[in-house]
Amino acid sequence: MTVDQRPSVQLPSATRYLSLVADKLALTEEVLRRNLESDVPFIQKSGEYIFEGGGKRIRPAMLLLCARLLGRDSDEEVTYGAVVELIHNATLIHDDIIDHSSLRRGRETVNQLWGNGLTVLLGDWLYTTSMRMAIDHGNIEVIRVLCDGTLRMTEGELLALERLGKIDLTVDEYLEITERKTAQLFAAACSIPAVIFPQRLELAEPLARYGRSLGLCFQLVDDLLDFTGQESELGKPVLSDLKEGRLTLPLILLLPRVGPRRRDLIRRVLDDRDFLSVEPEEILELVEAEGTVDETFERAVGYADEARRALDVLPGGDAREALEFAPDFVLNRRS
Amino acid sequence: MTVDQRPSVQLPSATRYLSLVADKLALTEEVLRRNLESDVPFIQKSGEYIFEGGGKRIRPAMLLLCARLLGRDSDEEVTYGAVVELIHNATLIHDDIIDHSSLRRGRETVNQLWGNGLTVLLGDWLYTTSMRMAIDHGNIEVIRVLCDGTLRMTEGELLALERLGKIDLTVDEYLEITERKTAQLFAAACSIPAVIFPQRLELAEPLARYGRSLGLCFQLVDDLLDFTGQESELGKPVLSDLKEGRLTLPLILLLPRVGPRRRDLIRRVLDDRDFLSVEPEEILELVEAEGTVDETFERAVGYADEARRALDVLPGGDAREALEFAPDFVLNRRS
Repeated sequence: MTVDQRPSVQLPSATRYLSLVADKLALTEEVLRRNLESDVPFIQKSGEYIFEGGGKRIRPAMLLLCARLLGRDSDEEVTYGAVVELIHNATLIHDDIIDHSSLRRGRETVNQLWGNGLTVLLGDWLYTTSMRMAIDHGNIEVIRVLCDGTLRMTEGELLALERLGKIDLTVDEYLEITERKTAQLFAAACSIPAVIFPQRLELAEPLARYGRSLGLCFQLVDDLLDFTGQESELGKPVLSDLKEGRLTLPLILLLPRVGPRRRDLIRRVLDDRDFLSVEPEEILELVEAEGTVDETFERAVGYADEARRALDVLPGGDAREALEFAPDFVLNRRS
Repeated sequence: MTVDQRPSVQLPSATRYLSLVADKLALTEEVLRRNLESDVPFIQKSGEYIFEGGGKRIRPAMLLLCARLLGRDSDEEVTYGAVVELIHNATLIHDDIIDHSSLRRGRETVNQLWGNGLTVLLGDWLYTTSMRMAIDHGNIEVIRVLCDGTLRMTEGELLALERLGKIDLTVDEYLEITERKTAQLFAAACSIPAVIFPQRLELAEPLARYGRSLGLCFQLVDDLLDFTGQESELGKPVLSDLKEGRLTLPLILLLPRVGPRRRDLIRRVLDDRDFLSVEPEEILELVEAEGTVDETFERAVGYADEARRALDVLPGGDAREALEFAPDFVLNRRS
């Protein structure tokens, strides 16, 4: 299956499956809002701004579906859903400082509106608040999973930043970075329900494996959308990654196969951090000609299959069906 | 007692009292070093750099003395000593980004050496690592105290940053900021030993009160040293706070008492963030003439007394003597 052969968007199925956790997702929003209230005016103001901006809430949705799969039904999984979303948002906020981003999801970033200083501190506050929220349920194993996921994510970002702008980034390095930067927090989100009391520790590993593979699939598709997406849907121009110095799989696979002239096109964008002497269309034609967008999609399909296989040992039912469907939804998303 | 009437530095006493926890402080260093090892080259490199730079280690020393006071003697308090030091260092590292600082303790800052992006991520990693280290002892109450202390500290910094450069900062606002920014982590450090099993929860409150008062004393003296210290001892020029837009007690107390011309001297430095049209000596003469350095010192003495009074309900012995001496040491420090 190539990108162009993707089935049409399965929105009705997605809506049906998400409806399984719609009530809990609504509660998650409430928990988020309540925990961002503060007597510090800036936290109150910027917290509201961030959560008005929304987001896909994919991490809480996955956590809540995995909780349903294990028959959990309490406030506890709702809290943890809010916690993983908060950790994710703290990362985005600090990332926007690092990337000097002025727009996210079509709105001005926190750093653009209020400067780097307040934004660094807001991210710190969100990270610690997320841990503080999780503590209230008294389950230290969950805190451990959250800390480990957060650490791997930060390490992934450090590795990525150290390799930023480097044209010799290898496939292995890229996958190592992606594994830590994105997949580990998905793995944490999916496995936490097995650690809630009464624990089902034997299911933590397959759930983590599911989350990890889904996370890798998610990130590969995210990287692909930078080549195949529409600016109007993405809220940012195409080839933003390359322009910001980030080499992703379609170009990493392509580079060893092309001659110095084409290689140089990519190098110039990486060096200039802009399309000064190269047109975005030249890069897009290149990946199309070499078929590396499709190859990347194939790899994403491979991770989707891996995710589904990890579910084999897990209980059946509507949540299992939803989790089996999730990789398809991720593969077919347009933004 | 005024600043000039301070007794000569009581170094022999300080050394004697610190020797009570010297072994544990050495172990703390080992724990710090071990937990900063990483397969991420940048973490390894910058972690070594930070800890070669040293520091006063006052927070672990206080935690370890409070642990001794309660008869604790295990690895657990050593871990928590390392944890509070790590939290403190994470703050400094993020602060240096916010303040655009290029020097700390006479050495180049992490942001100066490696840029803001890596430094934001390193601070995040240190915060999460500190929580991760604390988890290993399985005491969720300790994690709660650490998270709460860290949150108050971040809030204090947010409040301070929002009021940066403002000439109308009030004494109450200044104390509110200082309470959160500095005193709360001292309070956490001192009260944690009461939360270690077997818990002595009835002693957590007086120990927190001791730490809070000592922290306020510590910060007031820190602010004073910016007026009275020597550049060679401080590792930074005098009046750095004012130059960076931070109004501290000697000037906050002075401002309502002087006329528009003198007020304007201070405003110009705050606005320019530099001594362009005002000499540092003019400001120093001003606080000397109005006696507000001595008044600030009096307040610090008040907090020192408060700290000592909080010890009344605590067990006697060598650790209690050391804790009674600590406020004097803080009052008399020169750097």
